Amino acid sequence: MVASLRLPSLTSLLFPATTRYPAALRRRVLCPRNRPASGFATAPSSGTAASPDTKPEVNRLRSDQAVTPRSQDFNAWYLDVIASAELADYGPVRGTMVIRPYGYAIWEAIQDYLNVKFKETGHSNMYFPQFIPYSFIEKEASHVEGFSPELALVTVGGGHELEEKLVVRPTSETIVNHMFTQWIHSYRDLPLMINQWANVTRWEMRTKPFIRTLEFLWQEGHTAHATPEEAEKEAKQMIEIYTRFAFEQTSIPVIAGRKSKLETFAGADTTYTIEAMMGDRKALQAGTSHNLGQNFSRAFGTQFQDENGERQHVWQTSWAVSTRFVGGIIMTHGDDTGLMLPPKIAPIQVVIVPIWKKDTEKTQVLSAASSVKEVLQTAGVRVKLDDTTERTAGWKFNFWEMKGVPIRIEIGPRDVSSNCVVVSRRDIPGKAGKVFGISMEPSTLVAYVKEKLDEIQSSLLEKAISFRDSNIVDVNSYEELKAAIASGKWARGPWSASDSDEQRVKEETGATIRCFPFEQTLGSKTCLMTGNPAEEVAIFAKSY
Amino acid sequence: MVASLRLPSLTSLLFPATTRYPAALRRRVLCPRNRPASGFATAPSSGTAASPDTKPEVNRLRSDQAVTPRSQDFNAWYLDVIASAELADYGPVRGTMVIRPYGYAIWEAIQDYLNVKFKETGHSNMYFPQFIPYSFIEKEASHVEGFSPELALVTVGGGHELEEKLVVRPTSETIVNHMFTQWIHSYRDLPLMINQWANVTRWEMRTKPFIRTLEFLWQEGHTAHATPEEAEKEAKQMIEIYTRFAFEQTSIPVIAGRKSKLETFAGADTTYTIEAMMGDRKALQAGTSHNLGQNFSRAFGTQFQDENGERQHVWQTSWAVSTRFVGGIIMTHGDDTGLMLPPKIAPIQVVIVPIWKKDTEKTQVLSAASSVKEVLQTAGVRVKLDDTTERTAGWKFNFWEMKGVPIRIEIGPRDVSSNCVVVSRRDIPGKAGKVFGISMEPSTLVAYVKEKLDEIQSSLLEKAISFRDSNIVDVNSYEELKAAIASGKWARGPWSASDSDEQRVKEETGATIRCFPFEQTLGSKTCLMTGNPAEEVAIFAKSY
Repeated sequence: MVASLRLPSLTSLLFPATTRYPAALRRRVLCPRNRPASGFATAPSSGTAASPDTKPEVNRLRSDQAVTPRSQDFNAWYLDVIASAELADYGPVRGTMVIRPYGYAIWEAIQDYLNVKFKETGHSNMYFPQFIPYSFIEKEASHVEGFSPELALVTVGGGHELEEKLVVRPTSETIVNHMFTQWIHSYRDLPLMINQWANVTRWEMRTKPFIRTLEFLWQEGHTAHATPEEAEKEAKQMIEIYTRFAFEQTSIPVIAGRKSKLETFAGADTTYTIEAMMGDRKALQAGTSHNLGQNFSRAFGTQFQDENGERQHVWQTSWAVSTRFVGGIIMTHGDDTGLMLPPKIAPIQVVIVPIWKKDTEKTQVLSAASSVKEVLQTAGVRVKLDDTTERTAGWKFNFWEMKGVPIRIEIGPRDVSSNCVVVSRRDIPGKAGKVFGISMEPSTLVAYVKEKLDEIQSSLLEKAISFRDSNIVDVNSYEELKAAIASGKWARGPWSASDSDEQRVKEETGATIRCFPFEQTLGSKTCLMTGNPAEEVAIFAKSY
Repeated sequence: MVASLRLPSLTSLLFPATTRYPAALRRRVLCPRNRPASGFATAPSSGTAASPDTKPEVNRLRSDQAVTPRSQDFNAWYLDVIASAELADYGPVRGTMVIRPYGYAIWEAIQDYLNVKFKETGHSNMYFPQFIPYSFIEKEASHVEGFSPELALVTVGGGHELEEKLVVRPTSETIVNHMFTQWIHSYRDLPLMINQWANVTRWEMRTKPFIRTLEFLWQEGHTAHATPEEAEKEAKQMIEIYTRFAFEQTSIPVIAGRKSKLETFAGADTTYTIEAMMGDRKALQAGTSHNLGQNFSRAFGTQFQDENGERQHVWQTSWAVSTRFVGGIIMTHGDDTGLMLPPKIAPIQVVIVPIWKKDTEKTQVLSAASSVKEVLQTAGVRVKLDDTTERTAGWKFNFWEMKGVPIRIEIGPRDVSSNCVVVSRRDIPGKAGKVFGISMEPSTLVAYVKEKLDEIQSSLLEKAISFRDSNIVDVNSYEELKAAIASGKWARGPWSASDSDEQRVKEETGATIRCFPFEQTLGSKTCLMTGNPAEEVAIFAKSY
């Protein structure tokens, strides 16, 4: 029996205004017709629904009452966290998602980091129309095969049936190439390196918030080069940027590598990927970078005159990261209590909870809490002071833990007297993560908080690395592979077998080749399936 | 006869990489089927098209050869500037636009400013799906009437005919209210204040890049409040933010005011607007803020329980600024030579053009130019060093003037010897805007450049104010109004006549009420049409 969610709906958590706790304490009911057929925990409320205008005092909940414990039902936990932490909600159209402020702020943190990296590496942002003539999609043979089952089509515009139906972009290679063909004439126009932040639409049948939705947000980079070497270098550079982003900003120890032929993007020569291990040990493809070769330039006639005056087709890449990454962050770090956010991408890094009993204490505690907030804010820390009077401190502790805020600062009357605060880490539960007597003196406090944020950031990464590594099994035979997958782990083993063997593994185990990792062990290898010599190990796993 | 465009297509102007000047010097041919039926200047090239692999030395062009002079043909000039300055291009689908890096960077500057203001005033960003069930649009009567002729409809998804056709959002009030209804329960959930940056689609028949396109980018704010007073205050606050943005960032002296009933947004009680006078004296509605009253909350049942336990419908606002603003900037400040960008939103504020004849001079000139670039960049100035060897300095002068860069710094061998540079202002043509002997000493140079940027920013605003004010005629009769409009000006006069009188003015003069400006003169007034008492003056103008 899934325990009911007792946490309320908040409107604006991130910005100054006033914080209000709506009193509707019953489990937030998602509109039933919006709920996907699969998965969403539908347990009725086990508590008494409070009427909206009462203000019950809620005692400290045990964390496992807040959301379905992760250890109990990973999928229900995931959906509960998204609802409770107000990361997203279902849109009215099946499979669509509303990204709420707290979830969107994580996406903004992702954008802020990547946008700088893209510009530093010479890319310019621009914007292509989302409506693509249907005929464009058909020009690149494997592209149309890959995408046609997932297309949304506009057939009516301004009250009239359109002569040519329009595809709502599932990705933009075709329209990008149509334009590149007009802009590129000479080798001097190359490289052409652009990016766009946009929404894309793929008519997916099985959807899951953030992970797979009908419409999602992403960035898509598109580049054109004079040589295949340059394109290859670019594709590798971008997967390297994604990899560093994952490790350094989100504490997700992705494994970067090359996709198998079967798993390569529809229209690419080579696809590089970063694969992340979620808390349920399923793999999440968290970003891809494609070396498109000349596939699209041949289909769209994108040519340039080289230094010898000869016309050649350009060599291209494309690469993307999407709002799916937010799902990856949730499923990597969250625990039974709820969300756990890496400090670098946390919308709120520090929450301050003032504690008082008597009204005489209130003034001084709130005044101290405001000063602490001011000090941290000035030092560039994203800080929230939860000074509402409608909830107990214990309730607030639970609430902000569920929201994954990395550090909580408690300030009570005795702390004020001693000019100190209590600092609790979200990633170390209970007393072990709680340190008393941290001085309120600005430079001391700021230094302490920043150090702790860094420690949490590293600690989350280390924990994720150790979880990942303890769940990858080196295998040397198909039997071992099957056993590893059956036990829920990833299997890593030498592979040089055929596409049909790969297909067979998928059918028999549910696992696919996630990638041939860039990091390979030296020495001769023997294909786990055929016994033939193999040049590389591949990683097999079930995936989202 | 329109002179040919001799300026080439550039790939990446904004970011470090290498700058290359493609040699294709002939007028960039826009794909004919992309060209809208109306307006685009179609003069053939009057120069000899150079073959793509030659590198002709082009002498300094007279500015009036670069783009169609504004004074000659405003519309052709506008489209030429967009093409030459590579702000945008036509997309493959009629009426769609590709926003190129230089144009997109202006939009990013707009976003950067507004995004901060929105957050400072308590709004959170989020994201709603773009697909809206058709039935939603029908719920608010005047809304459906206003938008149904312009809708793009998705009727096929994943290969199947959809049961309910989906509207590609023309604006999001309906879906926002659908979600607000689920999130708002109590007065404690209010105010709910959000914003989204998104693309929207309106199936327009007559399109023009940036000004009116099938798809465009915008931000749309949506708020819900407990009282009509709060909603009104919010709607006014947001038009005030837009007004300040227009004046302070873009040097556009908009006139803020209230729309007439006929011109009010479909679904609003009141629409506030900022109206800008373009270089051809047509008005551009550059931003709007709507007090929606309870129209959408009644249609969608968006209710809250107030402090007395009674259920009430929320009071709402919505407000938007779009990529249209980029068009407004072009048409406000540009001149015969091309674009002229206000420093605060210019992607490149300063361009450095090094000048040398002998190779021995080259090294020291380029080294000095690099230092100057470094110094300015470190000081936070957006600076570009144009150090390519494929073009003459004169050619570069023209090119960057056409691109509207506010300040040019020239550095030649003699400047290097005297440790000085030459600084030219884009807004003061020729020698009058050129100052010799500005010291290269970092603090002096930085202070000088920053001061000049501020001066240009103010100067553009003053010029635009004086242009605006000299083109508004105070009128007291319909005859005077007709004369003012016929002479291409705006008419301002007391108005209390009927909707049908307003309609008659439109039919007979082509002008509409742009707004009842907030700034009103005191004293009793007599309606210019009826002679009845009037409380306010209205501004009439032809508009985009």
